[in-house]
Amino acid sequence: MRISEFGGELAIIEFIARKYGGKPTDALVTGIGDDAALIQIANDKLLIVTTDLLIENTHFRRDIIDPYSLGWKSVAANISDIAAMGGKPTYTFVSIALDDVDVSFVEELYKGMYDCATAYGSVIAGGDTNVSKDRRAINITQLGEVAVGKQVLRSGAKPGDCILVTGTPGDSAAGLEMLFSYGKDKAKNLYSSLVEAHLKPKPRVAEAAAAAATGKLHSMMDISDGLAADLPKLCLASGIGAIVTVESLPISPALIEAADELGLDARRLALNGGEEYELLMTVAEADVDIVRKAIVDATGTPVTAIGRITADLEVLVEYANQATTILKGGWTHFGKAQE
Amino acid sequence: MRISEFGGELAIIEFIARKYGGKPTDALVTGIGDDAALIQIANDKLLIVTTDLLIENTHFRRDIIDPYSLGWKSVAANISDIAAMGGKPTYTFVSIALDDVDVSFVEELYKGMYDCATAYGSVIAGGDTNVSKDRRAINITQLGEVAVGKQVLRSGAKPGDCILVTGTPGDSAAGLEMLFSYGKDKAKNLYSSLVEAHLKPKPRVAEAAAAAATGKLHSMMDISDGLAADLPKLCLASGIGAIVTVESLPISPALIEAADELGLDARRLALNGGEEYELLMTVAEADVDIVRKAIVDATGTPVTAIGRITADLEVLVEYANQATTILKGGWTHFGKAQE
Repeated sequence: MRISEFGGELAIIEFIARKYGGKPTDALVTGIGDDAALIQIANDKLLIVTTDLLIENTHFRRDIIDPYSLGWKSVAANISDIAAMGGKPTYTFVSIALDDVDVSFVEELYKGMYDCATAYGSVIAGGDTNVSKDRRAINITQLGEVAVGKQVLRSGAKPGDCILVTGTPGDSAAGLEMLFSYGKDKAKNLYSSLVEAHLKPKPRVAEAAAAAATGKLHSMMDISDGLAADLPKLCLASGIGAIVTVESLPISPALIEAADELGLDARRLALNGGEEYELLMTVAEADVDIVRKAIVDATGTPVTAIGRITADLEVLVEYANQATTILKGGWTHFGKAQE
Repeated sequence: MRISEFGGELAIIEFIARKYGGKPTDALVTGIGDDAALIQIANDKLLIVTTDLLIENTHFRRDIIDPYSLGWKSVAANISDIAAMGGKPTYTFVSIALDDVDVSFVEELYKGMYDCATAYGSVIAGGDTNVSKDRRAINITQLGEVAVGKQVLRSGAKPGDCILVTGTPGDSAAGLEMLFSYGKDKAKNLYSSLVEAHLKPKPRVAEAAAAAATGKLHSMMDISDGLAADLPKLCLASGIGAIVTVESLPISPALIEAADELGLDARRLALNGGEEYELLMTVAEADVDIVRKAIVDATGTPVTAIGRITADLEVLVEYANQATTILKGGWTHFGKAQE
């Protein structure tokens, strides 16, 4: 039986986690199944570990992304996972396989990784460098830390919680569509904010820290696979459901304009777009303003309520006059939801 | 300028380390440049981190290695790096990119990783799973720990030190040659010990721990790239040179037989063979017996003196009646040494 017949990527991850993954212990606080693993390393401190493998032509294309942006983005994705646990990034480990490229490619790639790591307080501390035959690949392992009791997991969402999201989801996906349609130069000229959201995403480290510091968050994760893919994961981890109101999704003016031009639906891009590092959080209704104010005061980043957590085991998307059932846990199914 | 013109893999690693690597601090005890990084995480404890990226057709071939062995070997290589710092393995993180393979492939791969991790006290605690388009890739990040002051680095070798090696280097390289020449089944039947050395290598965790516990080791590393590649790295890190006596290299009877059959030089395989996880250690002449006895008593693994550390900045290989100069730090040069 092929992976696709077995239920795809999510099914195989669940199978691996169940059969071969370490079970939670006093030391392994959180194993496979959240944005990152949590390991107790001192009485008052948890080590956070996340890792991410990018393969050329599956995750990136040379004609679409320049080496600096590739480096930045690879590190940003991992730092975002640290942020999503409420933690602060510490050390970055880089494995790369390259063919016999120009040294300037390596330099630009590492400059992007270094700049991103440095911008968020992390240090490149090791790795593995291979000169390979053809296909390029990058693996980043990012370490971080968080005080014991201050971590925020996917699994704490409660019925009645308000669902919050930072920034304007969909910008990165629209930026990618623009890069596909117009190429690097023209896309950057016409839609710089969307292209930048795709090529040089800003992980929400300060936003997550400000939100976590309120002590009011019930759950948090980043939406690196897109809202539609990631909200069901949060629901599955928390054993609850959710209703998202499409009309409440924060859509940037640039996204509306780009979607028009591309003949795409802006709200669909905001729901399904991936490769962006906004935070998805749930908090009690009464605490929404406290969390929003903390984030806005610290960073200026907008925070929008997009729905609520329910006791049902369904993840629903509400449109103006109808509700569409979303099957739990599968972005494949989710992606097929009708409008 | 291409990487090859710039000086190859080692030159590019040095460039990256110098320009983008974290400099040692109170917290980052050892960054890029040893088997693994060392990070102080408690008053009395160092975290050890190592990572390794394997790309299909560069590092492994489907026709040569079965998925179980591939899994075992991927983890073994990283656990060996933890051992080589004097540490104990704790947690394993697995990133994989797979095409839409049979689920049994995933299961066998993970079983190999799980068995190896478990055999050496490590737990699979996270990772990243991608179903990719074509080329398969695996990245392992292995964590470990060691008490402060008990770590053993590459950089402590002293002139006059005796150079020790565990086991019988070259077996893995001969096993690979057999797999190339005869295919999996026939090679396993004829030369099971060599093929096993290649497909299911045993990282020397207990050996390294026993040696480190004597407090007598000046330096240690594994020889995963082969003696000829790795001894110059140890010398470079320690600012010293070395003389290895070819006649003293421990050669297994199976290696002699296989080399004969393949028309290869057994000692050359022992010198240049990579993908094996024996330990290279240096100790004061007076302490050789203490270290050897500690390893043999704890594990039964043989330990052989193969040369000595010198104050010169050259790495030499002595043959019966001539000495060949080995240029420092480059296995490319080293590989061209005449016999």
